[in-house]
This record gives sequence, C-alpha cells and structure tokens, in this order.
Amino acid sequence: MSEQPLGAAKGLRVGEIVAALGGTLRGDGQHQVLRIASIERAGATDIAYLSHSSKREWLSTTQAGCMVMPPDLEAEAQRFQAAILTPDPYLYYARLAQWFAELQAEPEVAGVHASAVVEAGADLAPTAVVGPCAVIERGAVIHDAAHIGAGCFVGRNAIIGQGTRLHPRAVVLAGCTLGARCIVHSGAVIGADGFGYARDANGVGVKIPQTGSVRIGNDVEIGANTTIDRGALDDTRIGDGVKIDNLVQIAHNVQIGPHTALAGCVGVSGSARIGAHCFIGGGVGIAGHLEIADHVVIGGMSLVSRSVRQPGHYTGAFPLDTHQNWSENAATLRHLSQLRSRVRQLENKLETQALPDSTKP
Amino acid sequence: MSEQPLGAAKGLRVGEIVAALGGTLRGDGQHQVLRIASIERAGATDIAYLSHSSKREWLSTTQAGCMVMPPDLEAEAQRFQAAILTPDPYLYYARLAQWFAELQAEPEVAGVHASAVVEAGADLAPTAVVGPCAVIERGAVIHDAAHIGAGCFVGRNAIIGQGTRLHPRAVVLAGCTLGARCIVHSGAVIGADGFGYARDANGVGVKIPQTGSVRIGNDVEIGANTTIDRGALDDTRIGDGVKIDNLVQIAHNVQIGPHTALAGCVGVSGSARIGAHCFIGGGVGIAGHLEIADHVVIGGMSLVSRSVRQPGHYTGAFPLDTHQNWSENAATLRHLSQLRSRVRQLENKLETQALPDSTKP
Amino acid sequence: MSEQPLGAAKGLRVGEIVAALGGTLRGDGQHQVLRIASIERAGATDIAYLSHSSKREWLSTTQAGCMVMPPDLEAEAQRFQAAILTPDPYLYYARLAQWFAELQAEPEVAGVHASAVVEAGADLAPTAVVGPCAVIERGAVIHDAAHIGAGCFVGRNAIIGQGTRLHPRAVVLAGCTLGARCIVHSGAVIGADGFGYARDANGVGVKIPQTGSVRIGNDVEIGANTTIDRGALDDTRIGDGVKIDNLVQIAHNVQIGPHTALAGCVGVSGSARIGAHCFIGGGVGIAGHLEIADHVVIGGMSLVSRSVRQPGHYTGAFPLDTHQNWSENAATLRHLSQLRSRVRQLENKLETQALPDSTKP
Repeated sequence: MSEQPLGAAKGLRVGEIVAALGGTLRGDGQHQVLRIASIERAGATDIAYLSHSSKREWLSTTQAGCMVMPPDLEAEAQRFQAAILTPDPYLYYARLAQWFAELQAEPEVAGVHASAVVEAGADLAPTAVVGPCAVIERGAVIHDAAHIGAGCFVGRNAIIGQGTRLHPRAVVLAGCTLGARCIVHSGAVIGADGFGYARDANGVGVKIPQTGSVRIGNDVEIGANTTIDRGALDDTRIGDGVKIDNLVQIAHNVQIGPHTALAGCVGVSGSARIGAHCFIGGGVGIAGHLEIADHVVIGGMSLVSRSVRQPGHYTGAFPLDTHQNWSENAATLRHLSQLRSRVRQLENKLETQALPDSTKP
Repeated sequence: MSEQPLGAAKGLRVGEIVAALGGTLRGDGQHQVLRIASIERAGATDIAYLSHSSKREWLSTTQAGCMVMPPDLEAEAQRFQAAILTPDPYLYYARLAQWFAELQAEPEVAGVHASAVVEAGADLAPTAVVGPCAVIERGAVIHDAAHIGAGCFVGRNAIIGQGTRLHPRAVVLAGCTLGARCIVHSGAVIGADGFGYARDANGVGVKIPQTGSVRIGNDVEIGANTTIDRGALDDTRIGDGVKIDNLVQIAHNVQIGPHTALAGCVGVSGSARIGAHCFIGGGVGIAGHLEIADHVVIGGMSLVSRSVRQPGHYTGAFPLDTHQNWSENAATLRHLSQLRSRVRQLENKLETQALPDSTKP
Repeated sequence: MSEQPLGAAKGLRVGEIVAALGGTLRGDGQHQVLRIASIERAGATDIAYLSHSSKREWLSTTQAGCMVMPPDLEAEAQRFQAAILTPDPYLYYARLAQWFAELQAEPEVAGVHASAVVEAGADLAPTAVVGPCAVIERGAVIHDAAHIGAGCFVGRNAIIGQGTRLHPRAVVLAGCTLGARCIVHSGAVIGADGFGYARDANGVGVKIPQTGSVRIGNDVEIGANTTIDRGALDDTRIGDGVKIDNLVQIAHNVQIGPHTALAGCVGVSGSARIGAHCFIGGGVGIAGHLEIADHVVIGGMSLVSRSVRQPGHYTGAFPLDTHQNWSENAATLRHLSQLRSRVRQLENKLETQALPDSTKP
C-alpha cells in the first residue's frame, strides 16, 4: 500500500536497477530509492517515471530523487540525483514495479488453512496455499505454488495451473482449467452455465444443459466480478496473455485470441471469436456468432453487430451533448432516412431545373 | 464436462430416444450413443444436431454416428448410422441433453455439511443439501430437494422452493422468496437494497430503507453475478420461467412477466414493468417507471427510455464504423437538427424559385 | 420485510411523528400507524406519502389511515384519519422510514461468530459484529459498531469505519479504508487490482503492480457486485456521501466528489475525476483521464468521452425505434457527413442559380 514504504533494507540503488533492467544511467548510481511514486507526489527517496507528454511540465517541479524518462529529454535529467534514460519509460516502470513488488511481498506459508474444506480426492501440490473458508472439491488439481484465496470455490475436476492466484471469493466451477501464472480477482465466476434455451411451442424456455467447460491459457488476468461461462457442448477458450477487466461477461463458446485485452463492463455474446492482440474498449457489446480479426481496436460503448475482418480502429457511440441539443438531434435522427430522401428529391429537382441553364448556349 | 464421456453403461440407444422424445427414426435404432457433441466434433458414438442452416455444410462431413435433423433434409439422413427427423432439432437437443444430464448426474447426499452454519430456527427439508461454508439464518425455509451450494448465504425468513439450486457463493437476502426448480448461479445477489434516496436541502442523500422483498416464481434461472434488488415498499417480482443471464441489474420494484428472457449486462431501472415472453438483448438499458408490452424484442445495447406498448422488434444502437468515418458522422450528428433546417430552407427556396417554371405555359 | 408488520407496541402516533420530524398535522394526532406502505396498497394502520403527481389520482381511493402530502393539496387531507402536510413528502418519507427501520431492527449481538476467521493482529472494537465464515486478516482495524457480514473478507491493514456495515460476501482488500456509516452491499469488491499493463515489443502485456489503495469517505453506499479498484500508485478516492448502485465499475485512480450518485451498470475509466453532487445515469460509460464538473447530470447509457466542464444535463444515446425504422436511419447515419456535403452542394448550387433571378429587374 502506498502508506507502507519499503523498509530501508529493501531499497534499490539506481545503478543496481540499470544493471538489471537496462537503460542509460545519468547521475549518481549509488542513489537509493525505496519505492515508486507518481511524478506528482514523489520525494527524494522515490523513483518516478515520465511517459505521457501531458505530465512533462512536472519534470521541473517534481521532488523525485530519480526519474525514468525518455532519452530526448536528457537535458532535463541533470536536476535529479539520478535518472534513467529509456525509450519506453512506462514499460520500464512496469518491470521495476514488479521487482519492487517481489521485494515487498510477504512470504506465504504453503498449506491448507484449518477452516478450508478440501474434499478427499482433490490433488494439491505441497507448495500450494489454500486460504480460510476456501472449498476445493474432489478431482480438482491445484498445481505448484498456486494460491487459492479465502472463501474461493474450486469445483470438481477443475485445474489450477502453477503459480496461479485466485483472490478471495473467486469461483472456478467444475471441470474448468486455468494455465500457469493466471490471476483471478475477487468475485469472478468461471464456468457458470451458458445462457442457452430452446423454446417449446408455448414459448417456454427449455434449458440446454451446458456440458462444455472453460479453458484458460497462461498469464491470463481476470477482473473482479467478471463472469466467463462454460460452453454448451464445446469449450469457451481464453488464449494466453489475455487480460480481462472487471464486470466483463464472456458467454458460452466464445474464443479469445492471445494477448487481447477487454476493458471493464464489456459483454461478449455466445460463440463470438475475437482475434489476438485486440483491444476492446469499456462497455462494448459484441454480438454472437461473429468474428473479430487480430489487431482490432473497438472504441468504448460500441456495439459490434457484424464481423470485423480488417485490423483497425472501429467506433460506434452516440456523441455526448447537452440534453437540449441531444433532444433536437435525436428527434431528427428518427427521420434521417426521410431527410436523405428529401435531399435526393432536391437534387433531382435542381438537376431538372438546372437543365435549361446548362443547355443554354 | 466434455472431457468426461458417459460410461458405456449410461449410453442410450437411438430407438430408446425416439420412443421417449418422439421424432422419426431413420437407420439403426439399436445404435448406441454415449453423449451429445457439436456437429463439428462429433464421433461415431456421439449424437449431434443440425438446427442452423449455417451448419448445413457439415452434414456431409461430420463423423457423428447419429444426427437429429429436420425432415426436409431426409435425403441426407442415410449416411448416418441413425438419424432422427424432427421439425425442431434444437428443442429436441435440449430435451435429449436434459436426459443425458440426468443420466450423468452424480447422486447428491442430502444433509448439511459440517462446515455450514445453520441458525436455530431455520427450517430445512430432510432432502435438502447444504454445502460447505454455507450460511442459513433463522426463519429461512429450505424446501425439499433444494440445493444450497458452498458458501451461499440465505438470510432470515427467505424461502427457497422445492428443487431450487443455489450455486456456490450465491446470496439470497432476508425475506426473499424463490419458487420451485429455480437455478441461481454463483455470485448472484438477490435482495440487496434498492437504490433510493431523498435529497435534503443541501443535496445530501437521505437513504430510504428498502422494506419490500424479492418474489421469484417457478423455473426461473438467474445468471452469475446478477443482482436483483428488494423493493422499496412493495416487492420486486420475477414471473415464472423468466431467464436472466449474467451481470444483469434488476432495480427495486421491477416486475417481469412470465417467460421473458434478459441477456447479459442488461440494466432495468426502478419500477419498470416488463411483459411476458419478451426478449431483452445484451447490454440493454431500461429506464424507470415505464412499461414494456408482452412479446417485445429489444435489440442489444439499446436504451428503452419510454414505454413500448406494441409487440415487435425495437432497436436503438449506433452503427459501428471505422473510427475515421464515425468521427465525421458523429460530428455531423451533433448538428443534425440544423441540417434538417437547411434542407427545409432549400425546399422552401426551391419551391419559390420553381413557381415561375411551373407556371410557365 | 413487507410481510412482517410491526408489532402493535412498535407503532407510532401521528402526533408523535410530527413532533419529531415537523410538518403540519391535520386530523387525529392520536391515530396510530404501524408501518409505511405505498399509496396503492396502504390500509387503515398504514402511513403513505404522495410525492409524484402521477400518483395523485390515488389520493381519493387509497385506504391509508394517514397521508404525508404537500400543503397545496390540503383540501384533500380531510378524508384521512390524519394527514401531515410538508413541502417535500419524499424526504419526509425517507426520514420516517429510517425511524421505523430503527424501531424494527433486531438487536445485534456484538462479537465474532465462532466460524469466522480473525487473524492475530487484527484490531476489532468490542462493539463490532463479525458474522459466520467472515475472514479478517492481520492489521485490519474494525471500528465501533461496525458490522462485518457473513462470508465477508477484510484484508490486511484495511480499515472499516465506525458503524459501517458490510453485507454478506462483500470483499474489502488489503489496505483499503472505509469511513463511518458506510454500507457495502453483498458481492461488492473494493480494492482489486486496477487494469494496468505496459506492452512489450511483442505486444505482450506486462502487469503493473497496483500499489495504491481505495479511500472511501463517510456515509458512502456501495451497491451489490460493484467493483472499485485500487490505485496504481496513488489512491482511488470516493468522497463523503457518494451513493453507488449495483454492478458499477470504478477503475484505478478515479476520484469522485462528495454526494455524487452513480446509478447501476456505470463504468468509470481510470483516473477520471467526477465532481460533487453529480448524477450519473444507469449504464453510462466515462472515459479515462477526464474531468466532470460539479452538479453535472449524465443521461442513461451515454458515453462521456471528453471533459464536461459546465454544470448541466448531458445526454448521448441513440433513440429507440422499431427495428425497421432504426435500420433505415442507421444506414443513412453511416453516410451522414456525405449527406451534409450534398446539402452544402445544393446550397451552393441554389445560391449560384439564384443569382440571375435575384438580379432580375
């Protein structure tokens, strides 16, 4: 937590950082930093970074002892006790923050909490951690160094990969599998039934048992209270390195390619297939049974109602306006195709009228 | 799970299926099928179905031993060891899948897990199942064959109907009632307070205690992490056979008629009344204090801001486009009512100008 | 619950109500009311209120024994056994309902349920209540009269303020702080990791450890299954009196000013700053790194993609229409900027053509 600076013994010298993570050192390599801080709030024992040009004005006022910054700003590096020049300060910050997080991490004690319920027939690695009030059913496999948080549920025959962490109250239902080094945040539900019904002659829904499962690759992160449904017959599949934010709904039989990211509140309908390296903006809806190519970016709150077959940036969202202006424009929008017809008529009329003129000698 | 085929002893002969579920048998009624599989992946001991015409090409290549298919494709039935002709293969599949699910189901042992907390004064049927770490408060009634999953919470005086199943970590708060044969998926919260505040003279919210409850009919399914709020004074009511997908929000005092379905990420505002046999698409928002008639379909991501009094299919969603095109169109949209005025002026002008021409001899 | 009327001993006399909450008494101050009911369903021992003019027709038919109503309807007060005239009946109702709720509340027994897990080093006030299967980690501080519901999780060093209530299965992760008198509904997750990744040269996400926390003021209410992420470096901050409905996503580093309300299904992206006394309608999306001024109202399902610097009411949502009309209008919308060009051409043409006419003698 930000209010808990590292103990002095856990600081890093800037030279030590450069030796491990690269970049060009300017200033005092012996300068010691105790934590990472934002450029606005950093102090003498903090290391900060500059990635957005919008923050550049802070370079001259920040109290940071060490700054990670791009090489083209080298001239401004000299006011810091130390500086690290690197073409991608944000990526550098990510790696450094991971290092600090490892330094800060409290050691975990492997084993099963006394209040947890592990059914006979579950297979737990000796290095796994199972928190209080967690429930693990028979047939489940928990691999090395996996961490099952307090109050989590892991159903029958589910597989939790090596080093994967379920935060408190996450749910992985029967038969679902997660790869290595995944992170599942609190309240996420993996493997609930897909939403599938046939309708009988009276329009009454007849439930289709959902007998597929969910298969999640390595290095996937799944946000708090996100839901990923099991497949109807085949499986729902999430590729390696996919990052899913909070409150996202992934329906049955969806497939998501590697390294795609989905921001918060996205809904993906059944059997949609999303490519690799896509970015789906917050609140986007994706209709069912369509395909999105690799390297597609969808702007926030858009509805994808047809397949998107070319890489690129797509958007569909009503522009915000004052309510008064919106009312007038929305009212007109309801007659837009008529407006087009009227323009067409005007064009025709003018064309006809214009004829005598244009045929004039 | 798809990776767990039925034991041989649990297979079904195709003739046996037709005898129970109807349809017309073609081929070998003695052929035994062990599970249902998708047309793409089915093998010799699988039964598959063809419902969408988009999958029709698979008829000539699928390895399925038995195919459920419409009568008009009878000519193509002969390549299978067995086939079942039926006008609605999808409905047939639903019923057959339910049968298989029953065959596959592991028997449940009635009773309360040692780690569950059941307060004195709760009324549990002897045939009910209460999973590990579930909590049931006093006054709650759990009817015959109901299943309260691991880590569920059932509050004071709540009623869980016969055969209703709460999946792990579902929450049913005080005084809410569920009918028979309902399914509540993990993380769903039934009966949290509705969002109701008066504002005092300083604009500070004064909470209105929510003293109604939630009353849910029979055969209702409620998705993972969906929330249904209790009423302010009266109750929130969900009719028989309603199906609600994941991450849906139902506000206080909402009423939903029988057999309506709500897809994922829908939000229904307070006191809205939705009719019977409606289908509300994913991500739809429904404003408060309005009515939607029976047999209404709302397209995904639409906002219903006024009552919809006629059955039919309604939509309101911005069409997706390349970001560049969207930018230009959205910019114009912000001046749409002006554009209409300009067209009107052109029409007037042309009308005036045209007069001399039209009065020409 | 509505089905549990107050015992007769717990009723209130109308005169007693007026003495405590103000308003002008009409009729019999000795009349006793046992509960609040809606104007449609109230009976002789109920008190009802009239706030919306849409309900005014009920004044002549309601069976309520006592009515809270505006002074301008005084003439209609005489048909009730008692009436209370007040300029804001809804606010009056809120305060009266709180009083009834206090009367009705069952006394809580302070202390920790035997099935809860409280780590050594957690600091619990003697008046705090900790429900069954709750988990509280070391370093957490639970202040006076706080209530930690069944199955809740409170992480290391988290702080739960005086009188704050976590409903069953709420999650407050490490280091997050809640002020006094907050209400957190079931399934809410406070302090999950923000959604932050750098991308390496291969487009692979590199997780940025989220080391900030969440700081929540006093009198905040947080809806069921809502998620509020911890900050990346600094903290996510929610001001006093903020009210957040169900299934809302608040991303890392967001700041929300006092007494703002967010309706259900809202998504707020990272580092957005929302002012005080705003109302954000249901399903709204707010893009990252922008500002919304105080006293801004955003209509439901709108996307806020740029800063809103002036108070007022803003909207951006596609108007609902029949699917057929929508199709035609949406198709035209995709060519809207071309339509504008065509109108411009017509205007130019007409201007040119008109010249000879206008120069006519």
